[in-house]
Amino acid sequence: MSNTFGTLFRLTSFGESHGAAIGGIIDGCPSGIEIDLEFIQNELNRRRPGQSSITTQRDESDEITFFSGIFEGKTTGTPIGFAILNTNQHSDDYNHLKDVYRPSHADYTYQMKYGTRDYRGGGRASARETIARVVAGAIAKLVLKQAGISITAYTSQIGPIKTSLLYQQLDLTQTETNSVRCPDQIIAKEMQTFIEQCKSEGDSIGGIVTCVIKGILVGLGEPIFDKLQARLAYAMLSINAVKGFDYGSGFECVSQKGSEVNDSFTIENEKVTTKTNFSGGIQGGISNGQDIYFRTVFKPTATISKSQQTIDTEKQLINLEAHGRHDPCVVPRAVPIIEAMAAMVTLDAYLLNKTHN
Amino acid sequence: MSNTFGTLFRLTSFGESHGAAIGGIIDGCPSGIEIDLEFIQNELNRRRPGQSSITTQRDESDEITFFSGIFEGKTTGTPIGFAILNTNQHSDDYNHLKDVYRPSHADYTYQMKYGTRDYRGGGRASARETIARVVAGAIAKLVLKQAGISITAYTSQIGPIKTSLLYQQLDLTQTETNSVRCPDQIIAKEMQTFIEQCKSEGDSIGGIVTCVIKGILVGLGEPIFDKLQARLAYAMLSINAVKGFDYGSGFECVSQKGSEVNDSFTIENEKVTTKTNFSGGIQGGISNGQDIYFRTVFKPTATISKSQQTIDTEKQLINLEAHGRHDPCVVPRAVPIIEAMAAMVTLDAYLLNKTHN
Amino acid sequence: MSNTFGTLFRLTSFGESHGAAIGGIIDGCPSGIEIDLEFIQNELNRRRPGQSSITTQRDESDEITFFSGIFEGKTTGTPIGFAILNTNQHSDDYNHLKDVYRPSHADYTYQMKYGTRDYRGGGRASARETIARVVAGAIAKLVLKQAGISITAYTSQIGPIKTSLLYQQLDLTQTETNSVRCPDQIIAKEMQTFIEQCKSEGDSIGGIVTCVIKGILVGLGEPIFDKLQARLAYAMLSINAVKGFDYGSGFECVSQKGSEVNDSFTIENEKVTTKTNFSGGIQGGISNGQDIYFRTVFKPTATISKSQQTIDTEKQLINLEAHGRHDPCVVPRAVPIIEAMAAMVTLDAYLLNKTHN
Amino acid sequence: MSNTFGTLFRLTSFGESHGAAIGGIIDGCPSGIEIDLEFIQNELNRRRPGQSSITTQRDESDEITFFSGIFEGKTTGTPIGFAILNTNQHSDDYNHLKDVYRPSHADYTYQMKYGTRDYRGGGRASARETIARVVAGAIAKLVLKQAGISITAYTSQIGPIKTSLLYQQLDLTQTETNSVRCPDQIIAKEMQTFIEQCKSEGDSIGGIVTCVIKGILVGLGEPIFDKLQARLAYAMLSINAVKGFDYGSGFECVSQKGSEVNDSFTIENEKVTTKTNFSGGIQGGISNGQDIYFRTVFKPTATISKSQQTIDTEKQLINLEAHGRHDPCVVPRAVPIIEAMAAMVTLDAYLLNKTHN
Repeated sequence: MSNTFGTLFRLTSFGESHGAAIGGIIDGCPSGIEIDLEFIQNELNRRRPGQSSITTQRDESDEITFFSGIFEGKTTGTPIGFAILNTNQHSDDYNHLKDVYRPSHADYTYQMKYGTRDYRGGGRASARETIARVVAGAIAKLVLKQAGISITAYTSQIGPIKTSLLYQQLDLTQTETNSVRCPDQIIAKEMQTFIEQCKSEGDSIGGIVTCVIKGILVGLGEPIFDKLQARLAYAMLSINAVKGFDYGSGFECVSQKGSEVNDSFTIENEKVTTKTNFSGGIQGGISNGQDIYFRTVFKPTATISKSQQTIDTEKQLINLEAHGRHDPCVVPRAVPIIEAMAAMVTLDAYLLNKTHN
Repeated sequence: MSNTFGTLFRLTSFGESHGAAIGGIIDGCPSGIEIDLEFIQNELNRRRPGQSSITTQRDESDEITFFSGIFEGKTTGTPIGFAILNTNQHSDDYNHLKDVYRPSHADYTYQMKYGTRDYRGGGRASARETIARVVAGAIAKLVLKQAGISITAYTSQIGPIKTSLLYQQLDLTQTETNSVRCPDQIIAKEMQTFIEQCKSEGDSIGGIVTCVIKGILVGLGEPIFDKLQARLAYAMLSINAVKGFDYGSGFECVSQKGSEVNDSFTIENEKVTTKTNFSGGIQGGISNGQDIYFRTVFKPTATISKSQQTIDTEKQLINLEAHGRHDPCVVPRAVPIIEAMAAMVTLDAYLLNKTHN
Repeated sequence: MSNTFGTLFRLTSFGESHGAAIGGIIDGCPSGIEIDLEFIQNELNRRRPGQSSITTQRDESDEITFFSGIFEGKTTGTPIGFAILNTNQHSDDYNHLKDVYRPSHADYTYQMKYGTRDYRGGGRASARETIARVVAGAIAKLVLKQAGISITAYTSQIGPIKTSLLYQQLDLTQTETNSVRCPDQIIAKEMQTFIEQCKSEGDSIGGIVTCVIKGILVGLGEPIFDKLQARLAYAMLSINAVKGFDYGSGFECVSQKGSEVNDSFTIENEKVTTKTNFSGGIQGGISNGQDIYFRTVFKPTATISKSQQTIDTEKQLINLEAHGRHDPCVVPRAVPIIEAMAAMVTLDAYLLNKTHN
Repeated sequence: MSNTFGTLFRLTSFGESHGAAIGGIIDGCPSGIEIDLEFIQNELNRRRPGQSSITTQRDESDEITFFSGIFEGKTTGTPIGFAILNTNQHSDDYNHLKDVYRPSHADYTYQMKYGTRDYRGGGRASARETIARVVAGAIAKLVLKQAGISITAYTSQIGPIKTSLLYQQLDLTQTETNSVRCPDQIIAKEMQTFIEQCKSEGDSIGGIVTCVIKGILVGLGEPIFDKLQARLAYAMLSINAVKGFDYGSGFECVSQKGSEVNDSFTIENEKVTTKTNFSGGIQGGISNGQDIYFRTVFKPTATISKSQQTIDTEKQLINLEAHGRHDPCVVPRAVPIIEAMAAMVTLDAYLLNKTHN
């Protein structure tokens, strides 16, 4: 198991969905950072279920307890231990899954790898582990804010429904005004309707989250292997249900020529800038000062109520209709998780960059 | 700088394009592995320039020297040091780039990050550093072969031209029969024509490489953060010019529902398998024994002969027509690099998996 | 801050002396290990204060809570989160130290490094952080036990009083029968008297702990830099108040010649062994199957009641008579900590050794 | 195998005694550092054999070649690859050791761990690997020099002969004036005589090296586990033949009381300092600005000409009289190695300390 993320700013996390708690340790956070508890709790609230009709109705309060590393309201440079107690588990809801391997879920692979698994609520493979990521990301955001760096994500596509506007054309302050977290309000409504329809069919749907990092200085990213985009891809693909990542011109660049997507340098107000930003703010693995933007695609939730064929632990074919409480679409709740991972990667690169000269 | 890749099987690399040598150290290679020097040199030959009319005409022989870690033809468990001398540099070709920041290249970001840069041939940011990856990947392949695991990549798209066949429908033994490395021979010819046309225009083009890992056992991958797909994405995005990665159903899953892309478990010949493989062989970050397949997208080569506006190091606007010798399309030569990185990731996961029980 | 120890079996710890809790996360523990809670709590009890007249009278119950990683009594291969609440803090006892830098303590260096510090009870620099080490060490012992490996430490010297017997001549099952943890009962009494005398003078004293690892297989240790003795030294010197480490013939070998301390190989019962064991069970950084033994020296506790001159945070000279509750000698309570660190190092080496062929 | 040392400033090394070359890669070196090649070669010369009558007469020129990371005389922030060719091997001298396990050497443990070994000249277990350490240490010294930090080691004891003077009482500029590297000239002569006598007997002897780090700023060292003394101990115990380490008052503090060895803070020239320095410049794992000093003890060279009983690879008892060329005492040549490792540890701590606020 590898439950630590980051080189200098590091999160180590623990916790199963239906165990006693989810939590973690943040190591390497600079000292003297004011800890805005309300902000952190609010980030957790953005992630937690039960926020709207299109998310699971599990009502987890997800209240955080900090154990260490904060003294008189500020970080001390020592590790920040924290936990969120699991309080609203309905473990009995999962008894019918004890002896079953759900399709496209981690039941089978965990059982084979470890010879055992906590089957309740997905155990360690539950997306509930992302709580720890959101906490660490929130603290990373507080540090980055002092450096003028902000990170904002939003839902840009759900199933076939997508906004045709680029992030520059959208008012990202509108993201939190609707339950799908799409700042294009018209599209947001369509997305919501689409998700509700999937839910009513006992089915699920995926989507794409776009994330933008603004205010970044030149020089973040550690070539060769820890190029900034490599760390971002690593971070995003470590999130449950993510199937792909691209940045800047991304997969679309495939049909364009060099002369079309090269970003010419120019001078504006005596500062170096680029006329376009197909590079997505990163060149040679190092930030060039332009906005960084990237996309992360999520598959449809694996757990659905529709009947599916699968096998049980005795290798018998069975039909499964999952009960439990699950989201028909994880994308809206994934928005703060994407931001959190991006914040951790950015802060880590920021700290590493201090050590080069 | 972070020039080490891997946890147990680790490559640390060094070298600039026009420095004395490119090389590296492979640490953690199991002992007793027979080193097939011809195979390794052949892998290097697949990567090296000058192979055909559509690759750069730099004629680098790229002969490898091993310094250590091999005794009487077998690995000893000690680190394998190696180097490839740089012999065919035309450093003077790059004098006109000394004071210029090429668009969408790493010149500017390296200069800002480190306060200096070796401008000759791209320095450390040159794709020539991938030589070290190919060597380590070749050795990883030799180890994996003993475990019955094979890794094969091919060009599936160049510019707008793509094969409509899935990897299962292609004869992958045909990949090396044409210079674009596309096993769909008809498409291959179209790709070749398209690249030549771009070249004649002084322009460049990107594409997509598809990679397949076969024969993998159940259990590889280290959740939470070192999920197998996260390590693969990390590895691929660390390669120059890569803009995106997806695996299994990838970006296309976005418009499909859970009931459509869930992989039902079933029993075949008394063994657990899945009816479909939208999961791409990985569930919960752990291999499930099915084929792993993923796509990596490359942007068009940044260096083009067409005139581009940019700035020099004195922040003056200039027009640049790059000379030097460069590929109009990096994708065919990227095929062995993708395989090498996939091999390193797979072997690392394989070794880590030995330690869980 | 670096609060993670180990490569594959890893402890990450958190917690200040007077914060809410001390705890940690154990990552990489093999799955399927039965968790003997009584044993773990007993190890914690060996470490905790208030055990006898010669240890501090702080009465900390140090009851452990496990949050994750254990299911139906066994490890699952997922991270084991745990915490011990701090319940018996008398934080007001430390108000007089708020503005003072205690001599030979970490007050000054933490303040300078981080620009802040939690002055209550030593904060993060308190030996109370070793609770997390003891928990991880206890679990490591449970894993090692299955492999036939045992780890036993004892007090071999307090101040000028030392046992003249070698570990082979001592009955190590007697270690826990007296409060100084010296299996030489006559010497143990002298040690106890000596410590009580120091205490009555308001002074403190140091000592030496000897540790023995038995049942070890050949092959543990990862040269070049992670030689087994290097990892042991690293582990021991990371414990508060430790000033030195040696193993095998150690510092005494300095006056002996090669012909005197070389360990001749021989055959016993058809197995390779050595006639002597000046090597301390390690050759070339790798265990050779003989007992591993090493010594760790502790300085006298820095906090004493005797009046000392020092400075306050305003750089004024002051006289300090520390109140608080502190041990006159940390050595007896250090015995289980030494064992814990040795267990973590050994298990880590054991797991790493699985990956070489 | 773990052949990488350091967190931010990292050496990865390779090479066997009688392989093609010894070398390494230095990653994380700050950019813009002037590389004084003469200084580096001189450090290598201090380590190399054949310097005097008391060292082995192998005449290795040990000329270094740099492959990368240096441009126009300065570091670029990219990895520094280097190698030293092995030119003066008399591999045939070792044929008689092919089937023999030398007492107290690494022959047996390497064979058992890896199932194979390069028996020529000790293979990877040869002290010749320290060449790579000396190169990295020399570069670390060049960086540290800019920060006003110097590192000096000397021989303080050989067999029973030791200087009674403390490092403060010695003129450390005299260290290089004699072949044993002891700045106490009278004692140096006695040491030399003693070593020559051991040599004439076909025997070997150990000793102690004392090392002093001066000019260090307050704040270096990363608690909890990467305390500065823990990293130093780790570094020293990773060197062949080292059996122990202590710092500050070290093993001698065992018979002293807290009131005797506590270092009172005081003010001198308006700066915080301590009246004494039993702490050895480190408190709570963090440098306090005083001199850091520590001792490292070396066992006698394992390879001796005197006849010894041992076994061969067929488990038959045999008598061994080692030929080859070996040092009767490794201590004088270890002085630059100790300095090199101390420099790497110090620079690593220096770079890490930049990231805390």
